Amino acid sequence: MKSLQNIISKISYHSLFKEVKIGLEKESQRVTLDGTLATTDHPKIFGCRNFHPSIQTDFSETQVEIITAVANSGKEVLEELAAIHEVVLRSMPEDEMLWPMSMPPKLPEDDRDIKIAKLANPKDVAYREQLAATYGKRKQMVSGIHYNFEFSVEFLEKLFAEQDEYELFKEFKTAAYLKVARNYLRYRWMVTYLIGAAPLPEEGYFTGCKKGMPNVPVRSIRNSHYGYTNDESVFVSYRSIEDYVTSIEELVNSGKISEEKEFYSAVRLRGGKNAADLAAKGVNYIEVRNIDNNPYAPYGITEEQIDVLHLFLMYMLWMDEPAEDADDMLKMGEKLNDLVALEHPLTQTSLAVEGEQLLSGMAEMVNQIGAPDKLVSLVACCQTLFDSPEKTLAGRIITEVNEGISQHDLAVSLGKSYHEQAYTRPYQLAGFTDMELSTQLLMFDAIQKGVAVEVLDRQDQFLKLTYRGQVEYVKKANMTSRDSYVVPLMMENKTVTKKVLAQAGFNVPQGKEFDSKKEALANYGYFMGKGIVVKPKSTNYGLGISIFKEGASQAAYEEAIRIAFSEDSAILVEEFVSGTEYRFFVIDGKVRAIMLRVPANVCGDGEHSVAELVAKKNQDPLRGTNHRAPLQLIELGDIEKLMLQEQGVSAETILEKDQIVYLRENSNVSTGGDSIDMTDEMPECYKEIAIQAVEAMGAKISGIDLIIPDYKKVATSGSQDYGIIEANFNPAMHMHVYPFAGKGRRLTQDVLKLLYPEILFNN
Amino acid sequence: MKSLQNIISKISYHSLFKEVKIGLEKESQRVTLDGTLATTDHPKIFGCRNFHPSIQTDFSETQVEIITAVANSGKEVLEELAAIHEVVLRSMPEDEMLWPMSMPPKLPEDDRDIKIAKLANPKDVAYREQLAATYGKRKQMVSGIHYNFEFSVEFLEKLFAEQDEYELFKEFKTAAYLKVARNYLRYRWMVTYLIGAAPLPEEGYFTGCKKGMPNVPVRSIRNSHYGYTNDESVFVSYRSIEDYVTSIEELVNSGKISEEKEFYSAVRLRGGKNAADLAAKGVNYIEVRNIDNNPYAPYGITEEQIDVLHLFLMYMLWMDEPAEDADDMLKMGEKLNDLVALEHPLTQTSLAVEGEQLLSGMAEMVNQIGAPDKLVSLVACCQTLFDSPEKTLAGRIITEVNEGISQHDLAVSLGKSYHEQAYTRPYQLAGFTDMELSTQLLMFDAIQKGVAVEVLDRQDQFLKLTYRGQVEYVKKANMTSRDSYVVPLMMENKTVTKKVLAQAGFNVPQGKEFDSKKEALANYGYFMGKGIVVKPKSTNYGLGISIFKEGASQAAYEEAIRIAFSEDSAILVEEFVSGTEYRFFVIDGKVRAIMLRVPANVCGDGEHSVAELVAKKNQDPLRGTNHRAPLQLIELGDIEKLMLQEQGVSAETILEKDQIVYLRENSNVSTGGDSIDMTDEMPECYKEIAIQAVEAMGAKISGIDLIIPDYKKVATSGSQDYGIIEANFNPAMHMHVYPFAGKGRRLTQDVLKLLYPEILFNN
Repeated sequence: MKSLQNIISKISYHSLFKEVKIGLEKESQRVTLDGTLATTDHPKIFGCRNFHPSIQTDFSETQVEIITAVANSGKEVLEELAAIHEVVLRSMPEDEMLWPMSMPPKLPEDDRDIKIAKLANPKDVAYREQLAATYGKRKQMVSGIHYNFEFSVEFLEKLFAEQDEYELFKEFKTAAYLKVARNYLRYRWMVTYLIGAAPLPEEGYFTGCKKGMPNVPVRSIRNSHYGYTNDESVFVSYRSIEDYVTSIEELVNSGKISEEKEFYSAVRLRGGKNAADLAAKGVNYIEVRNIDNNPYAPYGITEEQIDVLHLFLMYMLWMDEPAEDADDMLKMGEKLNDLVALEHPLTQTSLAVEGEQLLSGMAEMVNQIGAPDKLVSLVACCQTLFDSPEKTLAGRIITEVNEGISQHDLAVSLGKSYHEQAYTRPYQLAGFTDMELSTQLLMFDAIQKGVAVEVLDRQDQFLKLTYRGQVEYVKKANMTSRDSYVVPLMMENKTVTKKVLAQAGFNVPQGKEFDSKKEALANYGYFMGKGIVVKPKSTNYGLGISIFKEGASQAAYEEAIRIAFSEDSAILVEEFVSGTEYRFFVIDGKVRAIMLRVPANVCGDGEHSVAELVAKKNQDPLRGTNHRAPLQLIELGDIEKLMLQEQGVSAETILEKDQIVYLRENSNVSTGGDSIDMTDEMPECYKEIAIQAVEAMGAKISGIDLIIPDYKKVATSGSQDYGIIEANFNPAMHMHVYPFAGKGRRLTQDVLKLLYPEILFNN
Repeated sequence: MKSLQNIISKISYHSLFKEVKIGLEKESQRVTLDGTLATTDHPKIFGCRNFHPSIQTDFSETQVEIITAVANSGKEVLEELAAIHEVVLRSMPEDEMLWPMSMPPKLPEDDRDIKIAKLANPKDVAYREQLAATYGKRKQMVSGIHYNFEFSVEFLEKLFAEQDEYELFKEFKTAAYLKVARNYLRYRWMVTYLIGAAPLPEEGYFTGCKKGMPNVPVRSIRNSHYGYTNDESVFVSYRSIEDYVTSIEELVNSGKISEEKEFYSAVRLRGGKNAADLAAKGVNYIEVRNIDNNPYAPYGITEEQIDVLHLFLMYMLWMDEPAEDADDMLKMGEKLNDLVALEHPLTQTSLAVEGEQLLSGMAEMVNQIGAPDKLVSLVACCQTLFDSPEKTLAGRIITEVNEGISQHDLAVSLGKSYHEQAYTRPYQLAGFTDMELSTQLLMFDAIQKGVAVEVLDRQDQFLKLTYRGQVEYVKKANMTSRDSYVVPLMMENKTVTKKVLAQAGFNVPQGKEFDSKKEALANYGYFMGKGIVVKPKSTNYGLGISIFKEGASQAAYEEAIRIAFSEDSAILVEEFVSGTEYRFFVIDGKVRAIMLRVPANVCGDGEHSVAELVAKKNQDPLRGTNHRAPLQLIELGDIEKLMLQEQGVSAETILEKDQIVYLRENSNVSTGGDSIDMTDEMPECYKEIAIQAVEAMGAKISGIDLIIPDYKKVATSGSQDYGIIEANFNPAMHMHVYPFAGKGRRLTQDVLKLLYPEILFNN
C-alpha cells in the first residue's frame, strides 16, 4: 500500500484519524482469597451462558471472560470493563476473587481437577476437549486481553476518495487493515516490551510441558513460544486477504488446527463469521490478542495502556511498510517478539535502536496531526519505559519479587485489594459513579443478568437495554415504557392527582386551589380553626409552604397566602393530615418497599458529645455527599445548631445513654435523615390502599406517600385512618436498596422484572 | 324546621354556605334561519342518543336538550352550557339555528308535522305519544331550563351537628331540602317576575287549546296555567318526604299522571331513580324547573341569573317558614305565581310589598354572611327590576314589540346573531377560550360525540374524558395514555432521539456532542468546510443557535461554540441538512397531516403598499394574537422592517403584482408565518419514512420534522434524500386543523379515535 501520510496530515483528517471504536475481551481465573483456583461452578446468578453478552467462560469453568460493548474511546471502554468487572466480583461467592495475572495461579496436580467450561452446547465442550488434548489443559489456563480495533469508517472513506491505488472502497479498507496487521506483527515486540506482564510461571503451569521452561524471569511467558501459541508449522500469510483466507482454510483442512478460531495470531482480521466472509465482504476491524493482564490495574488494563495501543495502531497505518516480502516480515516479527518476550525484565531490550526509531516516528506523526498534549505525553511515557526497564510491568513485578515477595503473594495481595474495593461501596458501579445511584444499581442488575446496557445519555440517565432482542429504554432507572405518558403528567399536578384519587374514593387532604390572592383571603372562614397547609400549586423543594397544625390566625393565614403566591401563580390550601408519613413503593401492582424517614439524629451513649456522635454516625460508608451515597452526611451547621439549642443541648453536650436528639426538623434523607425499611412491619390493609391508589392512577411504578396516624390500626380505603399526600413518578430507589435500618429492597430488580418478566432473579 | 339563621351566621359557615353544585338542562327548538321549525332529524353527527351525556332530544325531534355536568359555580356551569351550545350550533346544518325563546316558534298547522323524538327505545316514544294525547303536542313544544341545585354536603353536615331537631343526618338533609322546596314553591312568583320571558305565544301554540289564550302580553305564558302544567287535580304534598312520595305514587296509580316524571312541579326533590328511593335514601338535591329561556342570552341564561337563583335558594333555606299549613302554603304559592305570570310585563307587580320583604331579607342575609360585593349587587339588581318592570326580560321583549318588531322577528334576529357568533371563530370553543386551541378543538369533538369532558386543571390543559364508562386522561390535547412514559423523554433529548433513529437506519444530521469548550474547539478540523449548525443540547426557543450553511471559519466556529455554551452546559455541532422542512403529523401509524411553514410574507397586487397588504392579510379571522388563533398577526416591527430593507423595499413600497416579500427569516407560525397543508401533495415514500421513524421510537403521536431537498424525488429510509431534524412529543394540532392554505386536517378527531376506536366520525 502506498504511503498515506501526505493525505492524513491534512488538517481536516486529524480529528477523524483519532476516532476509534474499541471493544475489549478480558479473561481471568476465579480463585479463592488465598489464590487457590476456585472449585465452584461459574456463578448461576449470571443465568444461562448461551447468550450472556458480557460475562462468559473461556476454556475452563473458572476462567471468566468479560466482554465489553464497542466504545468510542479508551476512557469509555475502560468504564465498560470496570463496570462488568465489578459486577463479576460482587456476583461471585464473597470468598472468591479474580486472579490479576495472565499466567494462571498454582494449578492442581491432577489434570482432571482443571474443569473444562460446563457449556450447554456439546460442540463447545468438544472443541475445548480437543484443545486440551492438543496443547494440554495448563496452557489453555493462560488469560489475556483481546483488543478489537476499528478506524472511523468516515475517515477511511475520505482516505479512499483521495488515493488512486484501489478502485473499490472494500478493497482499500481491507488493504489498510492488512497493512496495519502486517506492521503490527512485525513490530509487536514493542507491545510485549511495554506492557508484557507475565514474567514467571506459577506452580503447575509447566507440568508435563515438552518444551521445558525458562530458568530466569522474562518479560512475558504468555507472548513467548512458551505461551499460548500454535505449533511452529502453523503459518498464515497476510500478504493479501485471499492468501490469508486460503492459508487458514488449508490449516483447518489439513487438520493442523481444528477450527479457524484455533489460529492464535497476535492480530486477527475480523469482518464476518468466518474467514471466507472476509474475502467476500472485506475486513471491518482487527483483533489484537497479545495483551497481558496488568496486575497493577484493577481491571487488568489502564486507560493509558489502551491509548498507547491506539496510538501504536494509528502509527501502523501511518508508517510506510518495510520493503521486504510480507511473509518474511511476519516471520521476522515473530522471532523478534520471542526474543523480547524472553529477555530479563530488568535489562534494556536488545531492540532499543529499532524502538527509538519507532518512537521518533510516532512523535513525528503526533506532531503532524496536531495531536493534543495527551498523545505527546504518551510517546514520552513509552520513551521512559525504554530508558528504565524496571518501570515496565514485567520490570515492576520482578523488582517486587527481588525485594522478597513471591509473585503468588503479590498477585493475591493485589487481587484482594481489588476485591475489597469492589465491596466498599456496593451501591456504586465502577465506571459510572457519576451517574445517579438508582441508575448505577439498575445497570448492575442488568449487566449481571445479561441485559446489554448502552448509556444513550449520561447526563440524562438515559439507558438502552437489550435482552434477547427486546429493546427497552429507561430514564432515571424507573421511567419506562410500561407507564403511560399521561400518568406522570397527572402525578406532577397535585390538583389533578387529588381529584383523580378523590373520585376513586381515596382520602386526600381536603382543600381549595386559588389563583388570586383576594379569593384565597376571602376563604379564611372556611379554613378557620382547622389544621392547614398553605403551599404553591407546583411545589419546588418545599419552598413557600406554611404549616399550621392547630389552625392559623387570620394574620398568619394572610402571611402564608402571601408567601405561597410569591412562589407560584396558583396556590393550594389543604387540611393538615396528622400522622406519620410513609413512602410506599409500588411496582407492577405490588408494594415492594415501605420507608419511614426520620430527621437527622444521634442517640447518646453516656460518653460522647453530640459532635462526636455525629462524626461516628458519619463513618457509615452508606453516608456520603452530593447524592453519591444512599444516605447523606449529618452536618453541624447553623440550622442543626439552632435545632440543638431548641432542645437545650449543644454540639459539646454529652448525651445520656439512649437519649435521642434531632439535628433537623425535616425528615429528608438529603439533610442527613435516616431511612428505615418498614416493608415487613406494615399491615396488608395499608399496602392494599397504596396498590389500589396507584392502580386508580393507572401507574405501574410510583412512590406514593401515605400519612398514617397509627399503622397498627386496621384501615380501608374508605376510612379516615390515612391520607394520601402525593404520588411520585420518579421516586428514588437507592434509599430502599440500602436503607439506614431494616432490610434492603432491590427495587431495581423489580423494574427489570417488569421490563423482562422472563428474567429469573432468585438463583 | 327550626330556624337555622343563628348557626349559619357564624363566620366559619360563610364560605361553605355559598358553596354549591349546579347542573343545567336547557331545551330549545331547532329552526331554520327564518325561524321556521326544522324538518330535519336530530343531527346524526351526535351519534346514538341512547347514551349521549350532554346532547339529547326532549319531546320532539326538533327539541334539542343540552345537559351540563355538575359544576361548582354559576360561572363554571355557564361555561359548560356555552360550550355544549356552541357544539350543537356548529354541528347542525349550517342553515339551522336554535330558537332563543321558551315559547315555541310558529308551529305547523297539522299536528302530524310536529314529530315526536325518534328515539330508539319504544317505551320512550310511547311516553311522548301519551303526553301528546293528554296535553296536546303544542304544549309539549314549550322549552325551558331546569336548574339542579345542591348545597355543600360538608355545610349540611356541620349544620346537622349543631342542631337538635333531627337525629339522623339523612332526615335533616331531607328536611332542609323540603324546607327549601316549600319556600320556593310559595315564593316562586318572584322568579317568574324577575326572569319570566314568555310574554307572547307564536302562531299555532294555542291551536286546539281548551283554555283559550290571554289577550294581552303577560310575564310568562310558560309559567302560567296556560303553560306546561299538570291538570289542576294533580296535587303533591311537600309536608314530609313520606307525604311527597305517597302523593306522587297515588297520582300514578290513579292514572292522573302516567309516570312520576309527568309531575310538572316547579321544584322536584331528587335523590334516586324514583320517588320511593327518596324515602329510603333521603333527598340529595332539588331540581328547579320554572326557568324560561332568556332570548337575550346567547345560551338562554346569564351568569347573573344563575347567581340570583342561587342566592334566592340560599335564602329559601335561611328564611324561616311561614306558620301556615304546608299544603295551603303551596296552593297559595301556585295562585300567586299564576297571578304574577299573567300580569302585563310593563306593570308593577301586585306583589311588590312581599317582594320588598323578600329582598330586604335577602340583603340582611347577605350582610350577615359577610358576602362579597357580587351578592350585594345581585340584591340591588333585583331591586332595580322591581322598580322598573320594563327591565325584566318580559318587559324588555314587550318594549321592543311595542316599538314595532314582532316577537318572531326579534327571536329570529337574536337567534341569528348567536348562530353567526358561533361560526365566527370556529377554532374556539365558547366557555373555554382561555385554553389552548388544540384542547378547545378536542373538547369540541369530544362533546359532539358524547364523550363527557371534565377539565381537571385548566392552566395545565388537563382533561378527563369518559365514553361509555372508559376513562381517559389527556393533557394538552395529545398527551395520552396511548404513548409510553419513556417516548416523550426520548424525544425531548435530541442526542437520544438521534441515536435511536440512527440505530434504526434513518438519516439524522451527523454531529458530535461536547460538554467542554476545549474539546469542541479541538474538533474544528472535523467540521471544517462542512455546512454546520452549532446549538445548545437543550434548545430553548432557538436561543444560542448558529447556522453556517457553507461552513464556518475557525474564528466563526469558535464564536458559535462560545454562544452555544452560554445557553447550556453541553452543545451539539451537527451537519447542516439543506432542503425544505416539513412537519409530518403521525397518529397511530398513519400520517394524518403534513405542513409546510413559510415565513411571514405578503404578495403584491400592483396597487397596495406592503403595510396595506399586511393589514389586509391580517383581516383573516384565522389570525390573532397570543396563540388565540391558528395563525398570528403579521407585525411590522424592527425585525420586519430590517428584513424588508434587505430586500430593498419599505413598508410604504407598492409591490408589483405577484411580487412576494418576506417579513421574517424564520418560518414560525408564531411570528406571522403561513401554514400550508401538503398532506395530499407529499409522495407516499416520505410518509412511509415518517411513519417508520415514529414507530422506531415507539410513539403513537408525534410531529416529526423532515428536511427534504426535493419532495418530488423518490426516497427510501436508507437514502440520503432527507434528514430527520427532530420529533416532537406535544406538537401543535390547531395549525393543521385550520391552515392558512390547503385542506384542514381534524387531528383532534384522530386523537379521539385513538382513545376510543369505536367512535364513528364519518356520519
